Amino acid sequence: MNYPNKINKGNNSVYYGNRGMTLENDINETNKYYLVNNIAIIHKKPTPITIAKVDYPSRKEAVIKEAYFKTPSTTDYNGIYKGKYIDFEAKETKASSFPLSNIHKHQIEHLKKVLEHGGISFLIIRFTLKGDTYLLPTKKLLDFIESNKRQSIPYEYFKKEGFIIKDNYNPRIDYLSIIEGEIE
Amino acid sequence: MNYPNKINKGNNSVYYGNRGMTLENDINETNKYYLVNNIAIIHKKPTPITIAKVDYPSRKEAVIKEAYFKTPSTTDYNGIYKGKYIDFEAKETKASSFPLSNIHKHQIEHLKKVLEHGGISFLIIRFTLKGDTYLLPTKKLLDFIESNKRQSIPYEYFKKEGFIIKDNYNPRIDYLSIIEGEIE
Repeated sequence: MNYPNKINKGNNSVYYGNRGMTLENDINETNKYYLVNNIAIIHKKPTPITIAKVDYPSRKEAVIKEAYFKTPSTTDYNGIYKGKYIDFEAKETKASSFPLSNIHKHQIEHLKKVLEHGGISFLIIRFTLKGDTYLLPTKKLLDFIESNKRQSIPYEYFKKEGFIIKDNYNPRIDYLSIIEGEIE
Repeated sequence: MNYPNKINKGNNSVYYGNRGMTLENDINETNKYYLVNNIAIIHKKPTPITIAKVDYPSRKEAVIKEAYFKTPSTTDYNGIYKGKYIDFEAKETKASSFPLSNIHKHQIEHLKKVLEHGGISFLIIRFTLKGDTYLLPTKKLLDFIESNKRQSIPYEYFKKEGFIIKDNYNPRIDYLSIIEGEIE
């Protein structure tokens, strides 16, 4: 492990330069905080690709020379928190509502299955123009899809049915504090 | 979903051509079986890579032209089974003992952390020359490392402290049947 054993909540200096980070960076930094403070083990999955060609210029070194992006069949993040399986997808949007086309059907199906198997699953959506980040439980996502023909979820729906995730220094976006109530 | 809703246990035809498959293929087929039969949701993580160069020959098509393999910080497989977080690494070896150098230290650390957080973690090791596949719980792996200076785990240790996973048609290697006792 390259991490220090413990990061104090008061120590903001490490994160000082990180304002205006992307949602992905914020989540990765938050997950690092959870990991080094022994709160949860949540990792981003690598980008799924199909490798077509690999060169081996030396015995130990391999260079991928041709590969293609694959459609993900699951979500980007999963892990464990207090013994519970956690699974979520995170997206940023510049729009004033969240287009459902931003999530693959396989991913929605996956989030639903996780719920059915007793895990905790949700979306984290950031509206970049407003600067707001919301956690939307999968149940609320499915409720919307079932009762609406709209192809995008309005901002107001997140405000009403979701949970706002406040920006902090460390952890950057403490999304686990929100689901705390659900699992204890 | 491209999968049929249900695969009957008696239907071996799909798997008939798959004898002599690698451990990875066996696990992937087993995980498919678990998924379509709604037993568990366990996926292999994509291979972690660092992308250096991407070409965009057309608007929709991207080709990765240069990428490098990264050292994995977690294991290859994780998911949920009966509400529990499952996490494991799988390796084949031609040797008569399992070299610890086949697993990165980060991965052992990760398996240990999962255990501490209330998840279920283990190794699946196949001795290809003997044709035997074993499940070794993380606790037994850690016990070995703590009490031995040897850099490889003897086959006999797996036989004594691990659980043999029998080969079947469908699911190919039913590793969840082994951990059943541990989590109920």
